[in-house]
Amino acid sequence: MKRLHIIKIGGSVLDNGALLKRFLDDFTRLRGFKILVHGGGSLATNLCKKLDIEVNMHNGRRITDEKTLEAATMVYAGLVNKRLVASLQSRNCNALGLSGADLNSLQTRKRIDPDIDFGLVGDMTEESINTGAIASLMHNGITPVFCAITHNGKGQLLNTNADTLATALGVNLSDNYDVSLAFCFDLPGVMSNPDDPESFIRNLNPEYMSRLRNSGAIQNGMIPKIHNGFEALEFGVPNVRITHAGELLTGKGTKLVL
Amino acid sequence: MKRLHIIKIGGSVLDNGALLKRFLDDFTRLRGFKILVHGGGSLATNLCKKLDIEVNMHNGRRITDEKTLEAATMVYAGLVNKRLVASLQSRNCNALGLSGADLNSLQTRKRIDPDIDFGLVGDMTEESINTGAIASLMHNGITPVFCAITHNGKGQLLNTNADTLATALGVNLSDNYDVSLAFCFDLPGVMSNPDDPESFIRNLNPEYMSRLRNSGAIQNGMIPKIHNGFEALEFGVPNVRITHAGELLTGKGTKLVL
Repeated sequence: MKRLHIIKIGGSVLDNGALLKRFLDDFTRLRGFKILVHGGGSLATNLCKKLDIEVNMHNGRRITDEKTLEAATMVYAGLVNKRLVASLQSRNCNALGLSGADLNSLQTRKRIDPDIDFGLVGDMTEESINTGAIASLMHNGITPVFCAITHNGKGQLLNTNADTLATALGVNLSDNYDVSLAFCFDLPGVMSNPDDPESFIRNLNPEYMSRLRNSGAIQNGMIPKIHNGFEALEFGVPNVRITHAGELLTGKGTKLVL
Repeated sequence: MKRLHIIKIGGSVLDNGALLKRFLDDFTRLRGFKILVHGGGSLATNLCKKLDIEVNMHNGRRITDEKTLEAATMVYAGLVNKRLVASLQSRNCNALGLSGADLNSLQTRKRIDPDIDFGLVGDMTEESINTGAIASLMHNGITPVFCAITHNGKGQLLNTNADTLATALGVNLSDNYDVSLAFCFDLPGVMSNPDDPESFIRNLNPEYMSRLRNSGAIQNGMIPKIHNGFEALEFGVPNVRITHAGELLTGKGTKLVL
């Protein structure tokens, strides 16, 4: 099977010019097929503030009303996506920016929750990923750059979690490719002591993860990210890493193991 | 040669829900290859207002500073482009939204003007259009949907005029396709009397155009649009129309002739 790198970068990378430059240099050098998935960074939050769009949360998850979706679409599918694509093209990486609506590449279902309406949020299903369209691009020498705006196939755009999207792509494409999935941010990996950069864990299994969570060493945004990673492993992605965006080529960071 | 429709829609169509719906229904029904090029509509102006971005003009042309380009990229490449793509996908038209950076499809040159710096504006050159990439998409059953954000190949996004872009696509692709180029808006065509909808002109040549311009019947934004159309004809596009967005399939509107 051919090698495929699926790399997710979050806001901490997008907001750090020097780190982003290094990341894009390294990403361009990766051999084999590759896919970039990105979040939005502080730009989305800043735009919502400037436009007086209220941020509504429920159990730590954002509720996406019409105005919030508009802002997310402008920032993720517009500004961030096109900047990344232009930067990759300047490095001779033949990038193509995609939302899930483009080529019907990622069709999701509006989230149904008995307790609360999360609004215009799209959840991945088993049929979400248009494997044929994505494979065809890659086999034509094209590098897909996905933002996490998807659609429902009926004309409605939906907001989707970028980590979940990267995980689903990894699981789906592992049927036909030797996938390495990396979640990149601005720390060396998962830390046993958040204040000590030297304390990053080289191999993390679910049992160790539970202990770190119970001790409070792993908190907030890291928890769903690690859960996504373990899910990817369980569903057949052979290599999953959580790592610093500057360590793409070195193989450093936290390797998830079962 | 195979038939290729290149259709430009402007803000007046994007801002009118019922007209846009009818246009998209008709666009989906067009046979042969097709490309959609869109402007931004009132959304871009509104966003600039909300973000307190000053609009600077020189001889009727907008000066694009960094903040204006950001807003244009968010609206054109993000919100408007992805809404159109999702709407077309819901009609089973396999649309793919593109800026010029995507696939390096449209590479432009920053405008050099001895009198004034227009800022981040990209002008089309003879080498701008990546004919191979665009043809490859169409031959794979994909309908390109272009916004008028381009790039310089060195990582910088640039703002380009959507009419000019549609014209350049028409001229370039006429070498290999039987191109029909249509500029669609919310009037029946070019009018000899702007207050009388019945006064639209069925065939307009440059000499008649000069007379209408001198009499004041044609003004402002219409003038460069018509000039673009005549340029397309001169450089080999066989069919050029300026027409109502609801008349895509009827062939009505103003046909430009030399």
